[in-house]
Amino acid sequence: MRHALILAAGKGTRMCSALAKVLHPLCGRPMAEWAVEAARQAGCTLSVVVGHQADAVREALPGCSFAVQDPPLGTGHAVQCALDVLPLEGIVLVLPGDAPLIRAETLEALLESHRGLCTVLTMSLERPGAYGRFIRSAEGSYIVEAAHASSEERAVKEVNSGIYAFDAAWLREQVMGLKPHAPKGEYYLTDVIEAASAAGGLSAVEHGDPDELMGVNDRVALASAEAVLRGRINRAWMARGVSMRDPDRTYVDVGVRLAQDVRLEPGVILSGHTVVEEGSIIGSGCVLHDSVVGAGTVLRPMVVAEGARIGGQCSVGPMARLREGTVLEPTVRVGNFVETKKAHLHSGVRAGHLSYLGDCEVGAGANIGAGTITCNYDGWGKHRTSIGEEAFIGSNTALVAPVSVGARSIVGAGSVVTEDVGDEDLAVGRGRQRNIEGGAPKLHARNRRRSGK
Amino acid sequence: MRHALILAAGKGTRMCSALAKVLHPLCGRPMAEWAVEAARQAGCTLSVVVGHQADAVREALPGCSFAVQDPPLGTGHAVQCALDVLPLEGIVLVLPGDAPLIRAETLEALLESHRGLCTVLTMSLERPGAYGRFIRSAEGSYIVEAAHASSEERAVKEVNSGIYAFDAAWLREQVMGLKPHAPKGEYYLTDVIEAASAAGGLSAVEHGDPDELMGVNDRVALASAEAVLRGRINRAWMARGVSMRDPDRTYVDVGVRLAQDVRLEPGVILSGHTVVEEGSIIGSGCVLHDSVVGAGTVLRPMVVAEGARIGGQCSVGPMARLREGTVLEPTVRVGNFVETKKAHLHSGVRAGHLSYLGDCEVGAGANIGAGTITCNYDGWGKHRTSIGEEAFIGSNTALVAPVSVGARSIVGAGSVVTEDVGDEDLAVGRGRQRNIEGGAPKLHARNRRRSGK
Amino acid sequence: MRHALILAAGKGTRMCSALAKVLHPLCGRPMAEWAVEAARQAGCTLSVVVGHQADAVREALPGCSFAVQDPPLGTGHAVQCALDVLPLEGIVLVLPGDAPLIRAETLEALLESHRGLCTVLTMSLERPGAYGRFIRSAEGSYIVEAAHASSEERAVKEVNSGIYAFDAAWLREQVMGLKPHAPKGEYYLTDVIEAASAAGGLSAVEHGDPDELMGVNDRVALASAEAVLRGRINRAWMARGVSMRDPDRTYVDVGVRLAQDVRLEPGVILSGHTVVEEGSIIGSGCVLHDSVVGAGTVLRPMVVAEGARIGGQCSVGPMARLREGTVLEPTVRVGNFVETKKAHLHSGVRAGHLSYLGDCEVGAGANIGAGTITCNYDGWGKHRTSIGEEAFIGSNTALVAPVSVGARSIVGAGSVVTEDVGDEDLAVGRGRQRNIEGGAPKLHARNRRRSGK
Repeated sequence: MRHALILAAGKGTRMCSALAKVLHPLCGRPMAEWAVEAARQAGCTLSVVVGHQADAVREALPGCSFAVQDPPLGTGHAVQCALDVLPLEGIVLVLPGDAPLIRAETLEALLESHRGLCTVLTMSLERPGAYGRFIRSAEGSYIVEAAHASSEERAVKEVNSGIYAFDAAWLREQVMGLKPHAPKGEYYLTDVIEAASAAGGLSAVEHGDPDELMGVNDRVALASAEAVLRGRINRAWMARGVSMRDPDRTYVDVGVRLAQDVRLEPGVILSGHTVVEEGSIIGSGCVLHDSVVGAGTVLRPMVVAEGARIGGQCSVGPMARLREGTVLEPTVRVGNFVETKKAHLHSGVRAGHLSYLGDCEVGAGANIGAGTITCNYDGWGKHRTSIGEEAFIGSNTALVAPVSVGARSIVGAGSVVTEDVGDEDLAVGRGRQRNIEGGAPKLHARNRRRSGK
Repeated sequence: MRHALILAAGKGTRMCSALAKVLHPLCGRPMAEWAVEAARQAGCTLSVVVGHQADAVREALPGCSFAVQDPPLGTGHAVQCALDVLPLEGIVLVLPGDAPLIRAETLEALLESHRGLCTVLTMSLERPGAYGRFIRSAEGSYIVEAAHASSEERAVKEVNSGIYAFDAAWLREQVMGLKPHAPKGEYYLTDVIEAASAAGGLSAVEHGDPDELMGVNDRVALASAEAVLRGRINRAWMARGVSMRDPDRTYVDVGVRLAQDVRLEPGVILSGHTVVEEGSIIGSGCVLHDSVVGAGTVLRPMVVAEGARIGGQCSVGPMARLREGTVLEPTVRVGNFVETKKAHLHSGVRAGHLSYLGDCEVGAGANIGAGTITCNYDGWGKHRTSIGEEAFIGSNTALVAPVSVGARSIVGAGSVVTEDVGDEDLAVGRGRQRNIEGGAPKLHARNRRRSGK
Repeated sequence: MRHALILAAGKGTRMCSALAKVLHPLCGRPMAEWAVEAARQAGCTLSVVVGHQADAVREALPGCSFAVQDPPLGTGHAVQCALDVLPLEGIVLVLPGDAPLIRAETLEALLESHRGLCTVLTMSLERPGAYGRFIRSAEGSYIVEAAHASSEERAVKEVNSGIYAFDAAWLREQVMGLKPHAPKGEYYLTDVIEAASAAGGLSAVEHGDPDELMGVNDRVALASAEAVLRGRINRAWMARGVSMRDPDRTYVDVGVRLAQDVRLEPGVILSGHTVVEEGSIIGSGCVLHDSVVGAGTVLRPMVVAEGARIGGQCSVGPMARLREGTVLEPTVRVGNFVETKKAHLHSGVRAGHLSYLGDCEVGAGANIGAGTITCNYDGWGKHRTSIGEEAFIGSNTALVAPVSVGARSIVGAGSVVTEDVGDEDLAVGRGRQRNIEGGAPKLHARNRRRSGK
């Protein structure tokens, strides 16, 4: 039995945040979830020690058991608090909740090599600084805090990462026997490691990439961690045939799925459960959340989509916005300065310019003129507009919902449509043009006087 | 006579792409064109060996001769296939089509130093890995494959880059005599090099920058190559007086021309034959393709232009879109959420907000009110709108084309203009306002009931 | 008395610019101001030697004394020209105006350690190249130009940064006695340093970070300097609790103020006196200048604001533009493709789509329909629109200013409002809809014929 215990009770003072440190997002996941997922992939069941903002942390980490540590009295105390949720035997990994870069493979290697009572994951640092040194000696290994190390020990570069594998039964026993340390009455997990050393049961696995074991303590480290995770995600997609013109500036969250020959231009941000299918191009500055883009579709620059389903062979944007409930069937064209919301546009619809299509159904092949607006809100509720197949909606038209415009009908430019229009009917609702000969100079003169110019 | 043979027949399996590797774009050029251009600048005539997607590769590389290799049976076979297009004498460079970072200067140096039968361009790698080692010895130089190298040979860091200069006549002769290798019956160019070595005619030029000789085999390398090329292009423009606030995030394709004191803000993407003249500012996120920007013009953030000609001292955007056939004469102002297409705006025109100007001519000094729309499409064809000098088009106006609005005329706000307006005329085409005293609470009550609230 | 003399008279030929080098902006400040501010923070009074574009440099550096050097005859001459503005005693720092990365702490350390006649700020370079070497010897220290150095001296890596502390009285005396050098008749400050050395009064402080002392001579260095300053500014804000998903791609000028738990998405550009209050989110691509964002507000991607005041708990964008004089009271919602200018929107106002609100006051809780346009300009002057509390402006409405729409009134969709609307009145101003049965095919037939299809 493999089990991982994530320590996620701390506040993270150096984050200077109203939000608990382990909840800060990284590529679409709260920080603590990265360690949780790595342990899960390494075959572990999971428990999490919570404390600060316990409820929010619980909610952020589905599928884990939880133990509460309150007040926080050290890492040893954290494990004590978790005794109810820890297994009786097997191996227990102990991981900090603020080490989001740890990989499943690394945890697997630690689990595989674990023997005896405790195996420490170590790393070699050029400047080991304040880290506890891992000393390998003929008499047995041990860890010594930097503050208490001899100059010979201080020169050792192999240090403790704070990630451990324990024999579960032995850990339980040891943790119950921990003594508090003055002045704060804290219980240290390092005392357990000392006990393992004393019993000759301490070993270490050195990990080659210290960056992977980095803890995040402030927002500078948070941004660095995001950059590392971004690099991993992006390299994985590139290996599977996704082109990114500038991977450092392409932001793909962990829940996104991309197909071969997708092209992501600089500055693209994809989040949630966004999916982009084969051969589609996502233009620079596009921001997609929980949206699907069908194959062979082109999103021109600066399209914003949330909860939209875009079919294949569509063309959208630039500078369009598709809101929740938008469905574009294949071959739809949506142009610049167009907003859709709960709008179902059937194949071949064209809405090229400056329109708002909300709460509506637009039949196949309909043409929506520039400046068309569905007036879906009357101050109390939202109402639906229905536009038939092959209808032609003239420019600058207001469709006052609820209203229906029939198939193959025409609405004249500048109309306000308040009544249904039948199939093949022509509807016009606008004032009649009057030309007043020579009227312009007179009006200008009036306006000029009014302005005192 | 200097000739370069580019090997561009491969598929590039590790790209995971429906597109042949050598056709993937890099800063506005297909990958293979970079090697072609470097060789051309080094004074070479050019031929290209094509195979996978041969027609598309041919089309992408104008001005080259082509030879077809199908099926692909090794590098030696590639040269065999090219015998018809190779010169009878002089020097022949052989270059891979997937080494886009090679510079003309490097090829010139190789050509200049070439003596004897074959000169290999080599590089020194800290970790030479699987590369063939170039061995310089008293008895003569030779190349040994990593797999067949002695441990002493393996320790050599100078390796073969895969770029060669050959005596043309000798190469022709050798290639015709190549023998196939089991098991696939492939012909190796390295056999030719072995022959040069045996004849005492092999030498090498070591190139100091191995990164320049990098081959692109997957999309990670593709992105890295683009970053290198981007850096080169941007440093060259900065040296000529272009400011880039963040050159790593400024994307200037190879066909673009920039003048002194141009300022490019972060995230700008310039492609095609775009030209920006002296002192103009291109705001963050602007995307310009095949467009010209005159001197002293300001594009505010997020302007998208394709095939547009923008005069000097203009102001455009933010968030405007200028489509093909747009011509802005000097001092025009186009504001936010405005789209133009086949629109000729004469000097001093102002179109500040939320307009669509398509298929139109707008006379000097005209004022286009917010929400003006040229209704240029009737479902069958596009029609033109003509607006005279100093005309004043009121806001929210629809101009139903074909239509002409005269010089110095005024169109009242909210009008639908279907008939021509004469010079200095005043045109109004809208409903008359009626105020229904106390009507609002009643309508609200009705709407509320309808909503069931 | 501590005084700093900034040398800012040069043209900066390698910038290839019509603008004097020291005026090129870096993170919101002209280049020379960075050295000025560092010296000011180190407790210095300030004078600046100007020459090229003297007036513009003067204007850019308020609070300094100025001396004119014209024509430029070397660094010694520059100090000569400044004799009137230099103090009679105390310490004088001499700094180049093109070293924007120098920190106040570094200048303080130089001032603190200054003894004798002259203290040179030095740095150690792996490749000291053409820099003057600082030679420390038993007989006393001296500087030797690279060109005149013995091979032993050339091997020294400690070099002169061009930043000095002088005894003021002694410097004045020396500078007056400088002799010109052939062939250009220039006066060298290094002659003064030689005199200090000869008098045994020369010492040096070595600075550990040579990058900080970097001079900016071309636009590549300008961009590098901006990246360094950007990194400093961003790390400082992150340390105070600001989240930046991609700090390399987040552009925060030096005059901006940010609060805890602000989140800046990639590509954000904040300039001028912009302030963002606690917990607000600034979406990707937003560009804010001289604007204030209240606490808990969300700017969705690509909002452009200049001189706007946005209250707390507001939601703006994506793709909205708030121009000068915009005031959004708390809880206002402004949606996509909306522009505001001199617009005061009281709490709870919603303007969701495709509108232009200029020169207007909108009462609390009013609803502004999609496509609403204030027609504020009549060709001569701007006029105001006033909209009362809880008013409901239907979509596609033109409000022809000056006009007033009363509280709790309703304006029907598609109306042109030219006359005032009273409180609780219902106003409608649009043409009446006519449906022509079967009219569409006929109109299509006509249009088709017209198009010749």
